[in-house]
Amino acid sequence: MADTAELQRLNRLFPQIPLVTAMQVHALDYDQERLRLGAPLDANVNDKGSAFGGSLAAVMTLSGWGLVTLQLQAHGLEADVFVADSQIRYLSPLYTDLVAEATLAPGQDWAPFLATFRQRGRARAQVTARVALPDGRAAVEMSGRYVAKRRR
Amino acid sequence: MADTAELQRLNRLFPQIPLVTAMQVHALDYDQERLRLGAPLDANVNDKGSAFGGSLAAVMTLSGWGLVTLQLQAHGLEADVFVADSQIRYLSPLYTDLVAEATLAPGQDWAPFLATFRQRGRARAQVTARVALPDGRAAVEMSGRYVAKRRR
Repeated sequence: MADTAELQRLNRLFPQIPLVTAMQVHALDYDQERLRLGAPLDANVNDKGSAFGGSLAAVMTLSGWGLVTLQLQAHGLEADVFVADSQIRYLSPLYTDLVAEATLAPGQDWAPFLATFRQRGRARAQVTARVALPDGRAAVEMSGRYVAKRRR
Repeated sequence: MADTAELQRLNRLFPQIPLVTAMQVHALDYDQERLRLGAPLDANVNDKGSAFGGSLAAVMTLSGWGLVTLQLQAHGLEADVFVADSQIRYLSPLYTDLVAEATLAPGQDWAPFLATFRQRGRARAQVTARVALPDGRAAVEMSGRYVAKRRR
């Protein structure tokens, strides 16, 4: 399912962002609907031995950004993508490596997003991201709105 | 206005969190009502030359955590403090060093928080954090809920 070229593109971009390097984030897999990013606990631990809240927020924010960026690139569209807002719920401490999974928010579809972007050079996407516990329940959940602007 | 002992306590704790070290966060000043944390742009830049959204989220989350932690310590209370949820608005790109400022949310007061904590060993605080642009307007704003639990 993984789109190797798209993953390589993300993994080449990440080293341009020092904090992403420090977090040791790497793109795991992508299938147009879902992007998963991984990061080791060691680099993202807090003083209590669980995942640092700031790392969880950052990796989820980044997964949503990557999801929107890859969707645009897959359609040959050059855009700058920005996070506009996010709501995060921290549900349970995580003691394992971080895997953030981003998808479009429930009820959303890429078609109107892409149509709006092509027409106006600007569009918004509502994204859901989560980092799961080993048993599959969410450790953290994010809902975030991203804005894509045509690159000039 | 700065409470030097409290700042030193935070600045000794930060190196225990690798991402905080990578972000080069340092406590700037604290006066019981307000905590300010600084972090250089260089360590927190994105691929567009502005502050990385993940860094902004992390430093604001950390400033709220520090504010609640220092308030409890100032009253001799030993607690673990966790972020429970946060809402972040990204308003404008930031091209300077990051300074995050955390205060209690408008209309909130420390007295009932401390009373609840003393009585139940657990209390919640609603915190506001922001990172300002050079002209004083907000680059990002956060509203976050933190939970303090008595340390056993």
